[in-house]
Amino acid sequence: MPVHKVIVDVLLKPEILDPQGQAVANALPSLGFAAPVSVRIGKHVEVEVDTDTPDDALQQVGKMAEVLLANPVIEDFRVRLA
Amino acid sequence: MPVHKVIVDVLLKPEILDPQGQAVANALPSLGFAAPVSVRIGKHVEVEVDTDTPDDALQQVGKMAEVLLANPVIEDFRVRLA
Repeated sequence: MPVHKVIVDVLLKPEILDPQGQAVANALPSLGFAAPVSVRIGKHVEVEVDTDTPDDALQQVGKMAEVLLANPVIEDFRVRLA
Repeated sequence: MPVHKVIVDVLLKPEILDPQGQAVANALPSLGFAAPVSVRIGKHVEVEVDTDTPDDALQQVGKMAEVLLANPVIEDFRVRLA
C-alpha cells in the first residue's frame, strides 16, 4: 500500500491560558521585535501511514488524534494531508 | 495596522532522533491502530502581528523563528500565512 503523510496540528482551546505562548510574547520585545498581538503554541505531528487511499489515511490519523495526540478537554486539533 | 496571523511549524531535522514521536509510534498498536511508518512531533506556533502587509508579517515572524522559536542546530521550520 502507498504511504501517505498526514499532519495534525494541536492547539490549546482559545479560552485556555497558554503560558508558553505568553512567555514567548513577553520575550520578543527584549529581542528587538515589536510586541506581538498574540502567540499560541501547540504541537505539530507528522504521521506516515500505509493505507489504500489518502482519505483512509486522513480518517485513521483523525482517530489517532482523538485517542492519543490531543486532549479533547483542553485542546482542538486539525488534520490535513501533507 | 491590520493584524496578520502567521504560522510557524518547527520540526526536528530528519537525521535527529525523535524520542517523543517514537513513543507515540510504539503506543499506537496497543490502542488498536496499525503500526505507522513514522511519527515526528514538533511545535506549531501561531503568531499574530500588527504589520502593514502580509509579506511584512511573514518576514517579521520568520526572523522570530530564527532567533527564538527554533533551534537551527537541530530543527527546521516553515513559515506561512494562516
